[in-house]
Amino acid sequence: MDFELSEDQQAFAETAREFAAHELAPHAAQWDREQTFPRAAIAKAGDLGFCGLYAPEHIGGLALPRLDATLVFEQMAAVDPSTTAFITIHNMATWMLGSWGTSAVCERWGADLTSGRKLASYCLTEPGAGSDAGNLKTRAELQGGEYVINGGKAFISGAGSTDVLVLMARTGGGGAAGVSAFAVPADAPGISYGKKEHKMGWNSQPTRTIAFDNVRIPADHLLGAEGEGFRIAMKGLDGGRINIATCSVGAAQGALDAARRYLHERQQFGKPLASFQALQFKLADMATELVAARQMVRLAASKLDAGHRDASTYCAMAKRFATDAGFNVCNDALQLHGGYGYLGEFPLERLVRDTRVHQILEGTNEIMRLIVARKLLESDVDIR
Amino acid sequence: MDFELSEDQQAFAETAREFAAHELAPHAAQWDREQTFPRAAIAKAGDLGFCGLYAPEHIGGLALPRLDATLVFEQMAAVDPSTTAFITIHNMATWMLGSWGTSAVCERWGADLTSGRKLASYCLTEPGAGSDAGNLKTRAELQGGEYVINGGKAFISGAGSTDVLVLMARTGGGGAAGVSAFAVPADAPGISYGKKEHKMGWNSQPTRTIAFDNVRIPADHLLGAEGEGFRIAMKGLDGGRINIATCSVGAAQGALDAARRYLHERQQFGKPLASFQALQFKLADMATELVAARQMVRLAASKLDAGHRDASTYCAMAKRFATDAGFNVCNDALQLHGGYGYLGEFPLERLVRDTRVHQILEGTNEIMRLIVARKLLESDVDIR
Amino acid sequence: MDFELSEDQQAFAETAREFAAHELAPHAAQWDREQTFPRAAIAKAGDLGFCGLYAPEHIGGLALPRLDATLVFEQMAAVDPSTTAFITIHNMATWMLGSWGTSAVCERWGADLTSGRKLASYCLTEPGAGSDAGNLKTRAELQGGEYVINGGKAFISGAGSTDVLVLMARTGGGGAAGVSAFAVPADAPGISYGKKEHKMGWNSQPTRTIAFDNVRIPADHLLGAEGEGFRIAMKGLDGGRINIATCSVGAAQGALDAARRYLHERQQFGKPLASFQALQFKLADMATELVAARQMVRLAASKLDAGHRDASTYCAMAKRFATDAGFNVCNDALQLHGGYGYLGEFPLERLVRDTRVHQILEGTNEIMRLIVARKLLESDVDIR
Amino acid sequence: MDFELSEDQQAFAETAREFAAHELAPHAAQWDREQTFPRAAIAKAGDLGFCGLYAPEHIGGLALPRLDATLVFEQMAAVDPSTTAFITIHNMATWMLGSWGTSAVCERWGADLTSGRKLASYCLTEPGAGSDAGNLKTRAELQGGEYVINGGKAFISGAGSTDVLVLMARTGGGGAAGVSAFAVPADAPGISYGKKEHKMGWNSQPTRTIAFDNVRIPADHLLGAEGEGFRIAMKGLDGGRINIATCSVGAAQGALDAARRYLHERQQFGKPLASFQALQFKLADMATELVAARQMVRLAASKLDAGHRDASTYCAMAKRFATDAGFNVCNDALQLHGGYGYLGEFPLERLVRDTRVHQILEGTNEIMRLIVARKLLESDVDIR
Repeated sequence: MDFELSEDQQAFAETAREFAAHELAPHAAQWDREQTFPRAAIAKAGDLGFCGLYAPEHIGGLALPRLDATLVFEQMAAVDPSTTAFITIHNMATWMLGSWGTSAVCERWGADLTSGRKLASYCLTEPGAGSDAGNLKTRAELQGGEYVINGGKAFISGAGSTDVLVLMARTGGGGAAGVSAFAVPADAPGISYGKKEHKMGWNSQPTRTIAFDNVRIPADHLLGAEGEGFRIAMKGLDGGRINIATCSVGAAQGALDAARRYLHERQQFGKPLASFQALQFKLADMATELVAARQMVRLAASKLDAGHRDASTYCAMAKRFATDAGFNVCNDALQLHGGYGYLGEFPLERLVRDTRVHQILEGTNEIMRLIVARKLLESDVDIR
Repeated sequence: MDFELSEDQQAFAETAREFAAHELAPHAAQWDREQTFPRAAIAKAGDLGFCGLYAPEHIGGLALPRLDATLVFEQMAAVDPSTTAFITIHNMATWMLGSWGTSAVCERWGADLTSGRKLASYCLTEPGAGSDAGNLKTRAELQGGEYVINGGKAFISGAGSTDVLVLMARTGGGGAAGVSAFAVPADAPGISYGKKEHKMGWNSQPTRTIAFDNVRIPADHLLGAEGEGFRIAMKGLDGGRINIATCSVGAAQGALDAARRYLHERQQFGKPLASFQALQFKLADMATELVAARQMVRLAASKLDAGHRDASTYCAMAKRFATDAGFNVCNDALQLHGGYGYLGEFPLERLVRDTRVHQILEGTNEIMRLIVARKLLESDVDIR
Repeated sequence: MDFELSEDQQAFAETAREFAAHELAPHAAQWDREQTFPRAAIAKAGDLGFCGLYAPEHIGGLALPRLDATLVFEQMAAVDPSTTAFITIHNMATWMLGSWGTSAVCERWGADLTSGRKLASYCLTEPGAGSDAGNLKTRAELQGGEYVINGGKAFISGAGSTDVLVLMARTGGGGAAGVSAFAVPADAPGISYGKKEHKMGWNSQPTRTIAFDNVRIPADHLLGAEGEGFRIAMKGLDGGRINIATCSVGAAQGALDAARRYLHERQQFGKPLASFQALQFKLADMATELVAARQMVRLAASKLDAGHRDASTYCAMAKRFATDAGFNVCNDALQLHGGYGYLGEFPLERLVRDTRVHQILEGTNEIMRLIVARKLLESDVDIR
Repeated sequence: MDFELSEDQQAFAETAREFAAHELAPHAAQWDREQTFPRAAIAKAGDLGFCGLYAPEHIGGLALPRLDATLVFEQMAAVDPSTTAFITIHNMATWMLGSWGTSAVCERWGADLTSGRKLASYCLTEPGAGSDAGNLKTRAELQGGEYVINGGKAFISGAGSTDVLVLMARTGGGGAAGVSAFAVPADAPGISYGKKEHKMGWNSQPTRTIAFDNVRIPADHLLGAEGEGFRIAMKGLDGGRINIATCSVGAAQGALDAARRYLHERQQFGKPLASFQALQFKLADMATELVAARQMVRLAASKLDAGHRDASTYCAMAKRFATDAGFNVCNDALQLHGGYGYLGEFPLERLVRDTRVHQILEGTNEIMRLIVARKLLESDVDIR
């Protein structure tokens, strides 16, 4: 066992920290307030390789382990969880496209995606369907060398502002076995986007529904084989859960650091807040939860990298634990700031709003509990 | 002991519920999004007596017990905690003005305030001073039959859009004994308002700083005697804490009711959410916390109405408990709505944002704990 | 609404407090350690009417409201929850016997039970059956003017040391409709008692299984009509839940008072513990939870006294809330005592062990959540 | 980074698991009930090297890293936290004696201690002094080639049944700098032991006060140099905190495994408990907390092994987190067992009682928060 970062890993994290400090931190509040999707900043992240961290090398990705990717995402999320979370989704979609795409697909989009010049959305959830992915209704029918797509998706990050849609659609019968994955040009005729959703947070990434009305794409835009879509989606979700969990860890670290500074700066009853024991205790608990959350994320990423048979369970545990801890730490940090924590001039209320959705997406934390419990109640599992 | 509402009390609550359903509910989301201060709707509340619920009758108030006022506020807060919270602050300021104002002051503003034609702000907090009210720095000096006011206030609800400021300022030496209360015309020369603060919620009421630069007001605009201001402020805070607590209870009831409906409407894995046991348990805990919170508020209001010697302690307990429970219930209800809970088309995320500040203002919940602990550690207290 | 105790109620509580101080407090630790069932002390409680607080007057009971009974139980539980809890069970069984018993039954046992000269056990739970009371298997068959009872019961408080068993047994077909209630002499031929269970706490009352092997009792020892047993049991449980909840409230008050004293007495780093802010905050939260728990118990008792249609739901809420709060407050008080809290010379560890079972019996707190949730998800309920 | 156990580490854990299953599990309940100190079983642990896991090799220890030691302790604690915790204390005292003892001391006791033929107690805490170790009052004065010891200790594990006392006493002036460490024969003239304390748990190890009345020991029984005692004690505490934390992790794993089995075995309402979703969720949360706690312990042990400058902070975090999680998981497992969880025939109530003290000793969890907070509020720390 070894709990220390290698020099390379420290270097990745440091690069990400500097990028975040210069390219995200100065703008994050404004992007949130004005609901700006910062394509230029994301492209700069792409220049550093952050748009294809674990995408395969043949499309220009860095092919890093998931554990290394979490180090990068964590640093960026410390100042802007919303933009960072979009970048993680783009990474996931790009990894899927690179891993299962035909050469036609990889050539068409690979380099542009890993460089961040073009962006991808991941289209799994359907209106009213939530986590019941095996039951999706969007259909893709093969007609004369093309797939014709009809149906609708909801809660799609980046929708309307991205270039490629990695889409799950039904090509066969009911259930998980009938689902296939596709790469779809975002501007294909027949695609229409809903209005930008009003959301509690995640305002630097637009969220829209997408309607598909006889959208035609080349047959070679299928990712993997027909029927393989659900398996691809599930593999994506394991990584997606680690990504969102690490965004929570990052945000919590940002909030904790803000609170540590504020406790020194702010006076109350003639003494700095840092001298009040009850606030010290709160800070200690926040830090302890945060360290535990980070360990859970790294443990899960390591299990995923190693192909451990129970990796999905570790990912579900990490997602549940770290997104709950992340929200709670941000929320506690807001409280430590008193009235100022509620104002937009400090980052706390934004971090709270942004991390709140992490407890919901990529499978709600209730779904995480189901996944973990099922595994625990099987006879032969040994989660320790 | 008797835990049932009288017929009159039920009638107040029912009137408030109908008012809220017709005048607040249809607009609350828009007011939040567009940061609209709904003066017209507040004036309609005034037509029903809701702008002077416990203000004295000689200025047109209803002079109701605090317990009765909580019933009204709770119903309105179930659909719009932000607007309701402002109305409670207006009630508090109006009650102060009516209780301690000279006849000049009462004649100038009393009837307009209790009717809601004019609105009042409560000006206690100063920049960087938080709960340390005894240490306030804004000064009022008597010069030739007028008080001349200099200094600044922060976090003032309604500031810039209200007509009267109930202001705490220092007329004497240091500490609580040097503080006096005043009624100040909001448009007096020398008053300037800061920009509207960006806040996490409470968007239907503007929050601004106020600067006082040689503001002159007539000597008879003093409320009570010189040096009585701190005592007036503290009495106001007891009621203010009950008010904010009941806003949390109301919001939580609104959120719980939304969740109860949603669990029936929404299907997952082919069954309504209402059939999932883990969600049932969550709902049960939410309802139980909520009932307990409501009892704490009514107990405290009853102690305040009775002039119980430990009323302030009960108010602090109620404020701490009910605002924590209120936020948690709203937040749990958001989670039960999954992704839809995060969107502006449902009320949940707004209720979460609005109730969040209740844990902070009128004394943070940390200050509440201090108040309760001090009393518990005195030898002769008997809080049961 | 009125939250104050009447003079009579204050007198009941004061009498109970004095009784507890003189007759329970000096012995409670020893009874726990030596597993002594204090029949003499219980009989003294009977002299004060505490063994038939809400039993009907025709058997010598005081016929008090449930709310009044909670005031008495709370005071006794503050020093000895285990003995007090047994007394509450005895009260429940005595109330059942008095309310549904024939004159033969009432004459045989009524006066002895309300006076505490004889004691009753309540026999509902069966081995492995938990809260599924409608499914009980013990049978009573009418044969020649007698009922013949066969089967077994588990977790019976007082078993082996009491005089009367109030027994639920099946006289008809399956389900709740086939259950009847009986008064059974505890020494009837065919009754055998299991070994005294080793328990975490509740050591001043013996717990045993009971086996019934062709036990014959007169036909007039049926309570109510055949088939009415389940309804009687459920009515008993509503009251039983309030009783156990009030025992938790009492224990928590005892623990809180001990902690308040200890924080003053004990020095650490040269200052009394009472001066440490983090411990003050803990104490404040304990007191606040406790006041809320007490209100929940009184609200539920009041609803039960009034025959409110949702009384059972309020009882379930109160049981869940107050037994959780009670255990937590005792456990926090133990922690505030540091190493001394873990030792038998202080009452804390005993209070923790005793209150732990309150979260389990009379329906586990999980069952309470089911009861509350079902009611909440019915369309026409209005729990506020 | 690497989160997997090596083959050697797996072998240690497996050996410990088998030892625990055969030598501890069959007797743990009885030892608890009868308050038996199982010297013979501890000696068998010594045969496997478990009495000197990280003691230096020159006294017969295995000199393993702390991380490896936690793997052994965890397995044993899964069935008997009380006996295991004593073994960890013995390991700590033996490591101190071996690390700082003179050759005289090492020759006198080293081999007997590492083999478990003799046992050691660790004597730091004084009556009423709690965590304020720098303020201890027991004195050791050098007189004619001997130290003469006077004073008293409290809460000493094993006292009265062990052979060597590793004692902290004051040889110099006030404060930490005046403290020295000694090895004292437990049967030296002038040593007297208090009565065996009644405790909530940890019943397989006797706890007593010790009084020292002119106890004379050879000068070469000083450990390290004069004045070095506090530093030695603090180094011991870091390891002691990891040890107690790993005992909590082990106990929790034992409780979780029991709950997993019980949910399958036990039927309620005609279905196994395992099919109830709310219980599944509870189980998932328990397992997740447990995995996080284990990671925290291993992280801290690894930092301690590496001599990381913030190792003490990680140890404090691990102790706080893991002992809270351990107690909560055991307590939740008790609840999942319903009434049976409260009985001595299942291990749950014993695990709850045993783990409860882990939140208190080796520095209460409140002291852990102070340690963590102080570090966080220093300017140059970087706990991530």
